[in-house]
Amino acid sequence: MPDLTQRLDRAFNPKTVAVVGDKRAMGYMWLHSMKAFTGKLYSVQIDPAEIPGIEALEVPNYASLAEIPDDIDYVICAVPRPVAARIIADCAKKNVGAVSLFTSGFAETETEEGIEAQRQVTEIARENDLLLIGPNCMGIHNRRLGVRHSPDQDHGDAGNVGFISQSGTHCINFSLIGATHGIKCSKTVSFGNAVLLDAPDYIDYLAQDAETDVIAIYIEGTRDGPRLLRSLKAAAARKPVVVWRGGTNTAGSRAVYSHTASLAAAPEVWSAAMRQAGVIETDDLDETIDAVKALVYCKPATGKRMGLVAMTGGQSVVITDAFEREGMDVPLLTPASYEKLASFFNIIGGSYRNPLDAGGTIGMGFVPGNLKKLFEILDDDENVDAIAMEVSGTFIARRLRDNPSMMDGLLDILSEQRERSAKPFLAVTHPSHVEDVMADVRRKLLDRGVAAFTSFHAAARALSRTTAYWARRDGA
Amino acid sequence: MPDLTQRLDRAFNPKTVAVVGDKRAMGYMWLHSMKAFTGKLYSVQIDPAEIPGIEALEVPNYASLAEIPDDIDYVICAVPRPVAARIIADCAKKNVGAVSLFTSGFAETETEEGIEAQRQVTEIARENDLLLIGPNCMGIHNRRLGVRHSPDQDHGDAGNVGFISQSGTHCINFSLIGATHGIKCSKTVSFGNAVLLDAPDYIDYLAQDAETDVIAIYIEGTRDGPRLLRSLKAAAARKPVVVWRGGTNTAGSRAVYSHTASLAAAPEVWSAAMRQAGVIETDDLDETIDAVKALVYCKPATGKRMGLVAMTGGQSVVITDAFEREGMDVPLLTPASYEKLASFFNIIGGSYRNPLDAGGTIGMGFVPGNLKKLFEILDDDENVDAIAMEVSGTFIARRLRDNPSMMDGLLDILSEQRERSAKPFLAVTHPSHVEDVMADVRRKLLDRGVAAFTSFHAAARALSRTTAYWARRDGA
Repeated sequence: MPDLTQRLDRAFNPKTVAVVGDKRAMGYMWLHSMKAFTGKLYSVQIDPAEIPGIEALEVPNYASLAEIPDDIDYVICAVPRPVAARIIADCAKKNVGAVSLFTSGFAETETEEGIEAQRQVTEIARENDLLLIGPNCMGIHNRRLGVRHSPDQDHGDAGNVGFISQSGTHCINFSLIGATHGIKCSKTVSFGNAVLLDAPDYIDYLAQDAETDVIAIYIEGTRDGPRLLRSLKAAAARKPVVVWRGGTNTAGSRAVYSHTASLAAAPEVWSAAMRQAGVIETDDLDETIDAVKALVYCKPATGKRMGLVAMTGGQSVVITDAFEREGMDVPLLTPASYEKLASFFNIIGGSYRNPLDAGGTIGMGFVPGNLKKLFEILDDDENVDAIAMEVSGTFIARRLRDNPSMMDGLLDILSEQRERSAKPFLAVTHPSHVEDVMADVRRKLLDRGVAAFTSFHAAARALSRTTAYWARRDGA
Repeated sequence: MPDLTQRLDRAFNPKTVAVVGDKRAMGYMWLHSMKAFTGKLYSVQIDPAEIPGIEALEVPNYASLAEIPDDIDYVICAVPRPVAARIIADCAKKNVGAVSLFTSGFAETETEEGIEAQRQVTEIARENDLLLIGPNCMGIHNRRLGVRHSPDQDHGDAGNVGFISQSGTHCINFSLIGATHGIKCSKTVSFGNAVLLDAPDYIDYLAQDAETDVIAIYIEGTRDGPRLLRSLKAAAARKPVVVWRGGTNTAGSRAVYSHTASLAAAPEVWSAAMRQAGVIETDDLDETIDAVKALVYCKPATGKRMGLVAMTGGQSVVITDAFEREGMDVPLLTPASYEKLASFFNIIGGSYRNPLDAGGTIGMGFVPGNLKKLFEILDDDENVDAIAMEVSGTFIARRLRDNPSMMDGLLDILSEQRERSAKPFLAVTHPSHVEDVMADVRRKLLDRGVAAFTSFHAAARALSRTTAYWARRDGA
């Protein structure tokens, strides 16, 4: 019998997938989601009214799993609840790699029937040593292989971020909204009610997965707190782990936690445990995406001293506020740096102590030579650990919109800086009144490998958290 | 001699404006900004090379202020620093209503020449009792009259939000970016180095301005802390005041504060003073815009008990987290409400204790009847003080994009709810992977008077702050 890692590896990298119970009323959502799958796709559906629709999608349909003339690595089961137990039994007989039970209406409804139905499928899976994901979940997504939760997800090229989610919504949102922030997922899993496989199983798997450089997690609770902490700690020793906990403060979640007694519910206790595990803690989807973005796009660094560049005096003040509020420092530069800056910096309307108010020096058309000089000075300065720059503002937004060659020139300089420098580099592209422009700049910067954030606060918070992660790991 | 309020009223509502020193190198930015001005616009420029460009804009040009055959209510002075003192003297002689000194290079450069030049213009203005705004500022913006800082600003219709800013950038950003969030400014002023008129003067003026319902402020420091607090307190007793302080934590600002001894620099001391003054404190532009949005669009309420509606179970958890984290409560509804809900709520995949996971009940096409019923139940429920609803998600975003009549139907229901209910109502339109759709929904909702926020966190924070403001005012 292969170990759990090998068995999950088969499920996360399937060569054959069967969808059981997809139907017109759901828009054949699973078959549509799987249409880019690189392996062999099968359907199981016995309702004669549904079969023509499935055949129109050119997916071979069978009356049962047993009849499929192939081994099945991964099953997506979307049948009505009363049929679920039978299909789970069929999966066991067929010896499939794993099954995701999309079907909902189990213990989460808090009804007697739901709890009893959950007990049944759990028992069948446990007795047969079947890998059961869920129920009440979206299951596995593998970008490279085109195993998807939604036809809107990208596929084909490999990603490097793994996402493990108790919620299907957050799992899809992380990959889809994350993609608009330059994040490509390697593998994700929505695991729902977690009757057999639980968060630690997926964490252990992604910790050893060579394709996954960063792990992010959405979790509401677990049956075995100490095991969760062990898995998080082991994973975080190998690669960065970001943990977003849902239900932190709700009366409902407090009740859940006091019943299971697995991990105390109080937010302070949870945070202390997360610190001990060495993971990065976040509070919502946006914070999770920002932290992952910093991990993927910024070079790792452990120092807190920022070199800051803004385009006006007002923004110089608030970019400094944002980084200091998140526990970063904004020190004076070395005398050597000030000598170099004095030779070309336009002091009228532009202080250059740090932050550098560079509007007058590089603002009018992003004078490329001056911007490069600025970056070189900050790179060479031993008082500076990381560099962040404002690339927004009403004036800049208009110029970039009206002047494509200026846009290209700016992108070139920023991506060269990102390549050349060993220090983390962050660009801030706050939405301006010309909203589309800054979203466009953000996407183009991310395409070129530059970490672009939508606000000073988001950039500062993400860098502060990732810096703390690398510092902790270095110290361990 | 009229009092300061009357004099500022003349400057903020000018019938005649003169721009001194605009030029081609600046793209004639001031004359372009003023092209929609409803009153009479004049230019003063003696450089023969500049005059044809000004005449091409059809603005009458004169060699001096004295030669303009009209009284001047408001002067924008954009001359080089060495000429500034002479123009300020001319303004005094002409008895103009007020002058904004856009020119920079004064004390903010921390050079001897800059400080001396500032001393000169200050002395001339003080001796002649001239209303001097700045220097190093953008001066006055009056949306209704087309007195603008930028041609990108809207004009013509009246707004109801006043903005007072030590920084020109934040002044323009608040009005331009605020406009994309449904905020219309009545009057704004960027006051720069504040050598004569200081923040309290503008606060006192907008506190009594009938056009201004809400005041927001960006401030870095003041010469007279007690006077600032008195003005804030008096203003906040009449209308909501939002204060964003820049330079909270920076070494630089700490130094400034310890020199002027006007108001202690420590963030805790500042916050305590702001609480005492009864204003809403914010930390950046986004928070300021969100708080103002809640003040303008949400009905005032003092209770903290939320009725929450989300479209999936995962989002139900995080919308609850967001509001509880900001100090709001998410109570159980009354038994009467649960009876009514039980009659039509789709329990499979949808809990309805509070938050209401309404995806299965209204999600598929936003079933209008069900959504109305939900709102009516929450409106009638005596345990609920305010209502917030998720209007985003990958599924919804796609549906709204592909189905304009669904979009219209949804907008109708939400704006009816906003009209009908006495409880504050907030919609959350988080960016989805279909980014443009949700920005479009946000703008359309705001157009119809519905407070739409870009994240659960933003909505929760804004409502928590404004609720505290109304509660304080009620208690006073």
